[in-house]
Amino acid sequence: MRKLRLIGIGTGNPEHLTLQAVGALESVEVVFILDKGEAKAELLRLRREICERFITRPFRFVVAQDPERDRNPGDYAAAVEAWHTARAVLYETLILRELAAGACGAILVWGDPALYDSTLRIIDRIVARGHLPLDYDVIPGISSVQALAASHRIALNRIGGPIHITTGRAIADGLKPDAESTVVMLDGDPRFEHLDPDLTIYWGAYLGTANEIILAGRLGAVAGEIRRLRAEARAHHGWIMDTYLLRAPDRR
Amino acid sequence: MRKLRLIGIGTGNPEHLTLQAVGALESVEVVFILDKGEAKAELLRLRREICERFITRPFRFVVAQDPERDRNPGDYAAAVEAWHTARAVLYETLILRELAAGACGAILVWGDPALYDSTLRIIDRIVARGHLPLDYDVIPGISSVQALAASHRIALNRIGGPIHITTGRAIADGLKPDAESTVVMLDGDPRFEHLDPDLTIYWGAYLGTANEIILAGRLGAVAGEIRRLRAEARAHHGWIMDTYLLRAPDRR
Repeated sequence: MRKLRLIGIGTGNPEHLTLQAVGALESVEVVFILDKGEAKAELLRLRREICERFITRPFRFVVAQDPERDRNPGDYAAAVEAWHTARAVLYETLILRELAAGACGAILVWGDPALYDSTLRIIDRIVARGHLPLDYDVIPGISSVQALAASHRIALNRIGGPIHITTGRAIADGLKPDAESTVVMLDGDPRFEHLDPDLTIYWGAYLGTANEIILAGRLGAVAGEIRRLRAEARAHHGWIMDTYLLRAPDRR
Repeated sequence: MRKLRLIGIGTGNPEHLTLQAVGALESVEVVFILDKGEAKAELLRLRREICERFITRPFRFVVAQDPERDRNPGDYAAAVEAWHTARAVLYETLILRELAAGACGAILVWGDPALYDSTLRIIDRIVARGHLPLDYDVIPGISSVQALAASHRIALNRIGGPIHITTGRAIADGLKPDAESTVVMLDGDPRFEHLDPDLTIYWGAYLGTANEIILAGRLGAVAGEIRRLRAEARAHHGWIMDTYLLRAPDRR
């Protein structure tokens, strides 16, 4: 039996790691990294830094090139399915080859493994395939949503109110009519023109890192500035990760 | 200027603390605790343990009795408002009296300060009242939602799908028709009879602690067992904190 630990590592600030994550890292011999290409070399470097700081026994990295993914598919769910299968086969092969029976490996996940991350689905697939007996656990981490709220010093919900967490893709046609607090993730090109300008937006990029930028205000007033900042930062760093909360005007 | 740190401490497992939270605790001289009564003495004890373990300088606790709250008000929002004001006045008085100018205090928040917690609203009120200049920051913590997902080893969302986080009160009349993944918090007496028995439920209580209980399955099959386990645990411990995810059947 091989042991695999899925460790949420927060959004880029090593101080986001929990003591549980630090404790888990101590037992790790192999760290599996899927390299998403040169643009995110900074993220790869951050992950290496975390490992070198916290893993106390001799360990090694196993870095694999992430399979290609169709970014503009006709059928989004099917394309993600195919991509997950490709990643599952890749991980299974890597784990079998690189992790000795009885040894402990880790996969470091940005943010929290429960939130818009595919690693758990890949592991489920490996387990379902049945070729590789695997004992695995999950260690939660600080997500970008929490880093966003902490930096803005806000609660995500209104008093007793709901929070809707969704994707840029899902709000392309606007928010739900009764949306009160909507967190938007994975929005590669936020357009705000189709949304109520009286929404309040709390936006943040590179949350938790030294490059963090945050901005909040009436959407109609700050949308242009956010798009400008975003384009500028993306050009400067070569990549951007950002998220935002949209809060409906209080009409009580 | 007084400094106040709102520190998310996770759900009862001291290992949930982030390195950032540990670092923040090191600088603290006064920890403010609102005591919610004897039933939750165990939670008070856990908080004391965390402080004694991580605060490195001489410090003291300032424990206040939480103001009374109308639990079954006609106007829910107004009752919560009144309660928050009472707590703001209480905190303001305590901070003025117990925290010297230039000193650093902390409020420890279960889970994450951004999620169904009133501390940030209280601080906003104190700042708005203008009697007490306050420099404060927020340190995110692992929420029960994340502990739930980690223990069940699941993602909260379907692939690319939304997550709706809400309260027991808000689902008293059922889920929204298009609800895919619904996290329910603050449900003091979960009834499941009005919900689709084909939902999958992922339930957990005392998440992250030594007393953790989790259960998952088709709602129609496990609802009775969850209610039984819940009543039994509540009687045994004198209190219960639990949360659950409801996942719609996959009808693609």
